[in-house]
Amino acid sequence: MAKVKTGVYGATGYTGFEIIKRLQRHPHVSLRFATSQTYAGQSLGRVYPAGRDIPLVSEQDVPLDDVDAVFCCLPHAAGMTIVQKAGEAGARVIDLSADFRLADAADYQTWYGLEHAAPHLLPEAVYGLSEVNRQAIKATDLLANPGCYPTSILLALYPLLKAGLLAPDAPLISDSKSGVSGAGRKLSLKTHFVETSENLSPYNIGQTHRHLAEINQTLAALSETPPPVIFSPHLVPVNRGMLSTIYITLAADTPAAQARTLFTETYAAEPLVRVLPPGDLATFAHTQRTDTCAISVTAVDARHLILCSSIDNLGKGAAGQALQNFNIMFGFEETTGLFW
Amino acid sequence: MAKVKTGVYGATGYTGFEIIKRLQRHPHVSLRFATSQTYAGQSLGRVYPAGRDIPLVSEQDVPLDDVDAVFCCLPHAAGMTIVQKAGEAGARVIDLSADFRLADAADYQTWYGLEHAAPHLLPEAVYGLSEVNRQAIKATDLLANPGCYPTSILLALYPLLKAGLLAPDAPLISDSKSGVSGAGRKLSLKTHFVETSENLSPYNIGQTHRHLAEINQTLAALSETPPPVIFSPHLVPVNRGMLSTIYITLAADTPAAQARTLFTETYAAEPLVRVLPPGDLATFAHTQRTDTCAISVTAVDARHLILCSSIDNLGKGAAGQALQNFNIMFGFEETTGLFW
Amino acid sequence: MAKVKTGVYGATGYTGFEIIKRLQRHPHVSLRFATSQTYAGQSLGRVYPAGRDIPLVSEQDVPLDDVDAVFCCLPHAAGMTIVQKAGEAGARVIDLSADFRLADAADYQTWYGLEHAAPHLLPEAVYGLSEVNRQAIKATDLLANPGCYPTSILLALYPLLKAGLLAPDAPLISDSKSGVSGAGRKLSLKTHFVETSENLSPYNIGQTHRHLAEINQTLAALSETPPPVIFSPHLVPVNRGMLSTIYITLAADTPAAQARTLFTETYAAEPLVRVLPPGDLATFAHTQRTDTCAISVTAVDARHLILCSSIDNLGKGAAGQALQNFNIMFGFEETTGLFW
Amino acid sequence: MAKVKTGVYGATGYTGFEIIKRLQRHPHVSLRFATSQTYAGQSLGRVYPAGRDIPLVSEQDVPLDDVDAVFCCLPHAAGMTIVQKAGEAGARVIDLSADFRLADAADYQTWYGLEHAAPHLLPEAVYGLSEVNRQAIKATDLLANPGCYPTSILLALYPLLKAGLLAPDAPLISDSKSGVSGAGRKLSLKTHFVETSENLSPYNIGQTHRHLAEINQTLAALSETPPPVIFSPHLVPVNRGMLSTIYITLAADTPAAQARTLFTETYAAEPLVRVLPPGDLATFAHTQRTDTCAISVTAVDARHLILCSSIDNLGKGAAGQALQNFNIMFGFEETTGLFW
Repeated sequence: MAKVKTGVYGATGYTGFEIIKRLQRHPHVSLRFATSQTYAGQSLGRVYPAGRDIPLVSEQDVPLDDVDAVFCCLPHAAGMTIVQKAGEAGARVIDLSADFRLADAADYQTWYGLEHAAPHLLPEAVYGLSEVNRQAIKATDLLANPGCYPTSILLALYPLLKAGLLAPDAPLISDSKSGVSGAGRKLSLKTHFVETSENLSPYNIGQTHRHLAEINQTLAALSETPPPVIFSPHLVPVNRGMLSTIYITLAADTPAAQARTLFTETYAAEPLVRVLPPGDLATFAHTQRTDTCAISVTAVDARHLILCSSIDNLGKGAAGQALQNFNIMFGFEETTGLFW
Repeated sequence: MAKVKTGVYGATGYTGFEIIKRLQRHPHVSLRFATSQTYAGQSLGRVYPAGRDIPLVSEQDVPLDDVDAVFCCLPHAAGMTIVQKAGEAGARVIDLSADFRLADAADYQTWYGLEHAAPHLLPEAVYGLSEVNRQAIKATDLLANPGCYPTSILLALYPLLKAGLLAPDAPLISDSKSGVSGAGRKLSLKTHFVETSENLSPYNIGQTHRHLAEINQTLAALSETPPPVIFSPHLVPVNRGMLSTIYITLAADTPAAQARTLFTETYAAEPLVRVLPPGDLATFAHTQRTDTCAISVTAVDARHLILCSSIDNLGKGAAGQALQNFNIMFGFEETTGLFW
Repeated sequence: MAKVKTGVYGATGYTGFEIIKRLQRHPHVSLRFATSQTYAGQSLGRVYPAGRDIPLVSEQDVPLDDVDAVFCCLPHAAGMTIVQKAGEAGARVIDLSADFRLADAADYQTWYGLEHAAPHLLPEAVYGLSEVNRQAIKATDLLANPGCYPTSILLALYPLLKAGLLAPDAPLISDSKSGVSGAGRKLSLKTHFVETSENLSPYNIGQTHRHLAEINQTLAALSETPPPVIFSPHLVPVNRGMLSTIYITLAADTPAAQARTLFTETYAAEPLVRVLPPGDLATFAHTQRTDTCAISVTAVDARHLILCSSIDNLGKGAAGQALQNFNIMFGFEETTGLFW
Repeated sequence: MAKVKTGVYGATGYTGFEIIKRLQRHPHVSLRFATSQTYAGQSLGRVYPAGRDIPLVSEQDVPLDDVDAVFCCLPHAAGMTIVQKAGEAGARVIDLSADFRLADAADYQTWYGLEHAAPHLLPEAVYGLSEVNRQAIKATDLLANPGCYPTSILLALYPLLKAGLLAPDAPLISDSKSGVSGAGRKLSLKTHFVETSENLSPYNIGQTHRHLAEINQTLAALSETPPPVIFSPHLVPVNRGMLSTIYITLAADTPAAQARTLFTETYAAEPLVRVLPPGDLATFAHTQRTDTCAISVTAVDARHLILCSSIDNLGKGAAGQALQNFNIMFGFEETTGLFW
């Protein structure tokens, strides 16, 4: 079988490097190029001590007409024209930025503070929440890979959304905790070791985190009466990992066992989403350095549940789900090349 | 001025050692004894590398008739008879365990699974939430020092409770995060370095943590219509620190500035509780290795607030508040010997 | 091709679990059993949150006549009779304990404080330093997998030993640093999170660490005039990783470039040992979560070198090298199933 | 008693903030100003979450004629003219940078790559290794506070230097480990949380670290035949702490007990240097968040010792020793205001 020829834009960011690692393990893929503007001309092994000797090239110098698929791991806005160019050159695009996640260009402007450069592509883009949108993902040539927080929250809510069990009026609260790699490799005092280590800090509390737009959009797509969401992210002194502790008010009294059944049935056939047995609570350790999601369901009373949803922010929260989507798009076994 | 003669039971646990450190800094105190059953005969400096050469003695061998006050830092149940004995010997007792926090012996049995050994002392015990119960603390001879989680939560709720602003029906949610020293020095796989480091884990979610009893009791004392509380503790890979992210539903629409004023006014004269300026969010770093509490107030909308309440679990959450209570009981400046 | 049937003794220790992870990735292997005395009857996924649902059985209940190879991951002494029994049943044995590393039963008694239970097997055992003993490894039925510290030190010394370049009289110093998983899963105050985190501690300094015996034995095998070794291990607050900083006195003046060439030539064809380019220094990050070794060579002057040798203590320092040896023994590509 | 009026230049760096914390505890000191070029006009409490509300002013705006002493916590070179100006204004200066540590301006140029701006002040400067240079410190108006690595190494060597016991020819090796705060608050990839956490890295190995100049200068001052020093610093993922593991060759056979006696006698009367009992090894925990030094002495054989010397890099390694020197200069009890 001919290998799928791939390229990676932004290979030296944390998600780019994770994409590379998975492509190296994938038996049906060849890597044609890996870009870095900062390190062009050097090798990946000099940027990451454990990286292999993969040459890094400038975006300008890639053989775009010789790839079947590209992964775009650039910061939002930075990759918009590249996504467009790659699509025009015939490559199927998996974009890990936020640029094509919001269906409405006006929403993009509201949350990201700049005009969308390729609004005509928005209707073609598919939001790549793998377990939810599998059919659309299969067919698309422009995959918008979800954010890490939305992935952890939406996979946990999906069984309840499908069943129409969320109370429409009570606020749905997600108190989310993320490892530091989610903030990327860009230097800031906030991620300086001495300031971060031994610390834990909430940030963007009070409805200001951009991922809220993505969460609300998907809730609206899956429910006619989506609840208002309160989303509070926290930074924890850990490299990788994410846990959303989600406080649910149900629309109707529901026995705990029945609530749990919604989850086990929804994910029974999913290799990458695990519903924990009663009594277990999802922790970072359940999914760290894997591309899976683990969900625990705890009943407070007949009307209130607490869901704990764990992913690795760079795994199922970024590169893992991107590869899973790639596998869906190209017809491979979904777990090929993934860590699980 | 004659020094207050003190003794410490359980000096080699984390809270015991912190009590010792503060007593060493306190100009009006002499330390008459420090007990340890495990290390009796040795010196504190052998148990803690940075500890001084304080001799450790067995509980049986202490000069109980020669102290004015004792700090009891033993695990719950273990110190009940000691508290009683010390009281009978004429010492004022500051108990850092949970044994005298619940006013009702039946509650104690429910939550701690054993019969209370000294129920007749319960009416005399005062719950030592310093800023709230100052007058009663001054007069008592048996001080029940609050738990760390309740301290972080109740200090944040106090201004709203006083104002009667908590909605009585909507659940009040505290998503709390604690450093590992809160779990004590007893060995367990849960606090083994390799299992804890790089991990974050919820525990006792779903209304099973014992501190809930203490929280509900105090809410009931301060409000005629206390809301139901959902309390979810999480363990984070940090030695010391605690943050409660608290989701509030207000009883009536309240402008953000007005809500904030409740907090700044309540704590205006308090040296150890700080209300952060608008826009700042409380983090572990605000109070780590201090005996203070820092609270941030963020409005979601006119009916919903998010409070972040930060304490050091061994500081204001244990030894710091114990010393503060000692200072109140003995008429010293409240911050004497404290870290702030 | 028929798969090699394998079993793992002691599957729930840190090295056992790492062996399991690699066997799951190995295309030519089937896992017939995984033992645990503590967790027999449960599943690996309950012991390790990220583990799969592999049933754990008691040592007594394994199909020993139906395996081609066993990995023995038990503590030293605990597995001696099992190794013997498995060998008699016809399985080739890879023992990760120290039991068969020392050729002389008297040495074993000296360093491990107990009589060797199967001294007649010692002559058959091969010390599995893969890159050094490859031919003997291929043929053996009893492989003694090296300790983590000796692996990091001996791979660094090997090029100099081969060239006879170590000064015979000057002490050779290895100041070694290890992650905490090297201390295993057994609880101790030394590996309690609160005591370990934010700390760094030397231990067994002054020639008392048992790995010294293994190091000296191999030096004597590879050199007629082995230098005296000073070996100082340190525990660092990191889960996984090991770095030995080795101070070498050379037997003769040697230009830096010439010294370096010894290393690059020795390891030119080795996929799992990397000699870093001039100027780079080996760090934990070079090999963490891989099964490789990275070595840097720094000249102080014509007579003194500083080698930094990095491995993952559970990778090349334990399970990775064990699998590499397995691959050599069974004729597979050496890197099959490994992380690199 | 009138308070000593002090000012702090560079109050928002890690050492500056630690100076402030100690001055706040010092009963005989008033703080007249704290400077920050970056944060001038703001309060220290906004820069450090646990800092108090001390106004930060620009260097240009300080009342230099109204202070008795200044602490200069600026990076090397940045503070040279300030030191000069402050001295001319009549203030006694404690400089925590490297600018006045080397007696020879040519050495400064060699190691720091720039011409010294105030070479005429070098003869007046006293190297503030408190326990070694106490008499000179008392009298000076320009105190050059030692670097952290030199402090940890020189305090350990001092008893042997005094006794003339170091072999003059064998290299003296210090394998030193430092917490990350030693690298300061300036952002770099090397101290980015994700790159530092879970890592351990040697740096400036091979005689390139600037502190080597300071070490050699002091050795030469205390010995007629100082040994060559090999100094290898390592960065460890801990906020604060430093351990130097020092490998000594003695000039003559020396029984272990006799070697140890040199240490206990040298430091018998020193409150801030502790020689550990036989069998104990110094760790970060012995001195972390204190202003003390802890030294362990381990004999390998009659000619070789291993010293472990522990300090807090910001304590005895910087701000603590600076305050100790201040106390010596102004005639206060040496431990006043210090953590110990």
